Amino acid sequence: MTEVNRVWRLRKRPVGDITDDVLTLAEEPIPEPNDGECLFRLNYLSLDPTNRIWMSDVDQYMPPVALDAPMRGVVCGTVVKSRHPGYTEGQIVSGLGDWADYQLGSPLTLNVMGDTGGVPVVDAFSTFAVVGPTAYFGLLDVGQPKAGETVVVSAAAGAVGSIAGQIAKIKGCRVIGLAGTKNKCTWIKEELGFDAAINYRTEDVPTALAAACPDGIDVYFDNVGGAILDVCLKLMNFNGRIPTCGLISQYNATEPVPGPYNYPMILMRRLRVQGFIVLDFADRYPEAVAALGRWMAEGRIKVRTEIVDGLENALQTVKRIFTGANTGKLIIRVKDVYR
Amino acid sequence: MTEVNRVWRLRKRPVGDITDDVLTLAEEPIPEPNDGECLFRLNYLSLDPTNRIWMSDVDQYMPPVALDAPMRGVVCGTVVKSRHPGYTEGQIVSGLGDWADYQLGSPLTLNVMGDTGGVPVVDAFSTFAVVGPTAYFGLLDVGQPKAGETVVVSAAAGAVGSIAGQIAKIKGCRVIGLAGTKNKCTWIKEELGFDAAINYRTEDVPTALAAACPDGIDVYFDNVGGAILDVCLKLMNFNGRIPTCGLISQYNATEPVPGPYNYPMILMRRLRVQGFIVLDFADRYPEAVAALGRWMAEGRIKVRTEIVDGLENALQTVKRIFTGANTGKLIIRVKDVYR
Repeated sequence: MTEVNRVWRLRKRPVGDITDDVLTLAEEPIPEPNDGECLFRLNYLSLDPTNRIWMSDVDQYMPPVALDAPMRGVVCGTVVKSRHPGYTEGQIVSGLGDWADYQLGSPLTLNVMGDTGGVPVVDAFSTFAVVGPTAYFGLLDVGQPKAGETVVVSAAAGAVGSIAGQIAKIKGCRVIGLAGTKNKCTWIKEELGFDAAINYRTEDVPTALAAACPDGIDVYFDNVGGAILDVCLKLMNFNGRIPTCGLISQYNATEPVPGPYNYPMILMRRLRVQGFIVLDFADRYPEAVAALGRWMAEGRIKVRTEIVDGLENALQTVKRIFTGANTGKLIIRVKDVYR
Repeated sequence: MTEVNRVWRLRKRPVGDITDDVLTLAEEPIPEPNDGECLFRLNYLSLDPTNRIWMSDVDQYMPPVALDAPMRGVVCGTVVKSRHPGYTEGQIVSGLGDWADYQLGSPLTLNVMGDTGGVPVVDAFSTFAVVGPTAYFGLLDVGQPKAGETVVVSAAAGAVGSIAGQIAKIKGCRVIGLAGTKNKCTWIKEELGFDAAINYRTEDVPTALAAACPDGIDVYFDNVGGAILDVCLKLMNFNGRIPTCGLISQYNATEPVPGPYNYPMILMRRLRVQGFIVLDFADRYPEAVAALGRWMAEGRIKVRTEIVDGLENALQTVKRIFTGANTGKLIIRVKDVYR
């Protein structure tokens, strides 16, 4: 092959907001697979809040991206050359990879994408690769909501939050979402069926949330941490649960961020606060994909994907997650694929 | 009866440390039991960190003591008059009651003390009424330690912490305790068999704890919150557990106390932080008492009880809990009883 490979490499760790000098787009030769690997071409790149964690070197759930290494991402690709019996040319694959046009994969991080049941590849990748199972296991396994309980979701118009809230509705819960624009609030309430939506930028959150949760909160699905977590802690019912999926309000912080002032509510209300990542449930992905696919087919779960074309736009686009500019799942499209 | 009844009543809510004007010792008539109640005489009064919570009106796990009401406590008494078929004169009872010589009880809060298996009443009350079951269920049910894991206990020379640490040793864990004096550290290490003891007042806790936990921390049994919690969070292993039994470092705070700066470790290390109170396990007390009694008889659990005579000394004595002046369980003795 004579084509050039574009690779986003991490050049410095961000301090505060992601800046333009954090990543550079290098032009490099296309790598050759070794025994046990395949070479694949990138179709879609998932942009996620956790990208900011991987760029930094704070204590985290997997090693941070090394300086000058390719930026890590969740990817969907097509196999172009294989030296592993599990991959054949033309197969669609997904998993953990790089922000790069061409890259090597092995079964450690890359799966062949199974049957998507008629769902287009981009939608299947967008929903089933990370965010859907995250919402599914985080809400159901960690949050354990019961019918009739009150569930609050922050970043509720985000990729994970919007699905978590809809699953909670399916399970018979009263669901309140927090989002940062009028449009997002309208979307989750009118289209996704949340019982109430609170605009945390324009409303007084303690007052609005207390009014929306007259019976208190049983499950707070936490995507953001910070001030909203503090308000929720105050409203939690006895034996409430706080699945901790993300703390996006503080990923870009440049100073130490105090924990919630209402931390003692964990004791006083006998709460369970539990962090999780979707990889912990990897062996149960098929269960989540089957349930999500069924609910989507039935129209009970709606997803919104925002697609931006061009790997060269990945850096500018990932920043939007941290300003609340996007709704639903954010995907970089390099080349559409169908099956 | 013509005897006078002394009753400690809550006159104001403490701001910061417990002060002498918070409670007064009133002299009152001895109450008469109504149908369904018994009248009992106080033998022993348990003094516990949670007394400070009950005095305040912060959000808490049961209603705070009302102003001018008798101060609430865990009590052991002897029935002197009964108008309930479940109580007979001379029976030894224990449960939730008042800081008062004479008081009324009903099955809602007061149990007849069962066979103590040869253990003296004061020791049975001291260990089995609250602190033993708290340590037992908090460590085993909430903390779920496995043999070979590292367990850290704060307030490790305290009534609950000292038992929790010894149970962890029985379960095959490596156990590190934090305490505030040289004598306490010596006691938990030399007499109770902790693997290491750290004096948090004289040692650099981050350094000492990291050195004592070369394999990280799997279970942190939290009695104190605050700075020690923050250090432990940083050292927690993946899927670690933090049973939250108390937050004594901040009960006397007069300003809002920030939560732990290392709160994000809950996400990054997929921790489970869970508050509990022993009342949640009330239906399983016999299991805890049987196990604790057996371990005590075998010499595998040692308890230390500090007995102060005279109900009139309760106010001065309870303050000692918050200065770290006591070791083990603190009991006010009004009248010794035997069986």
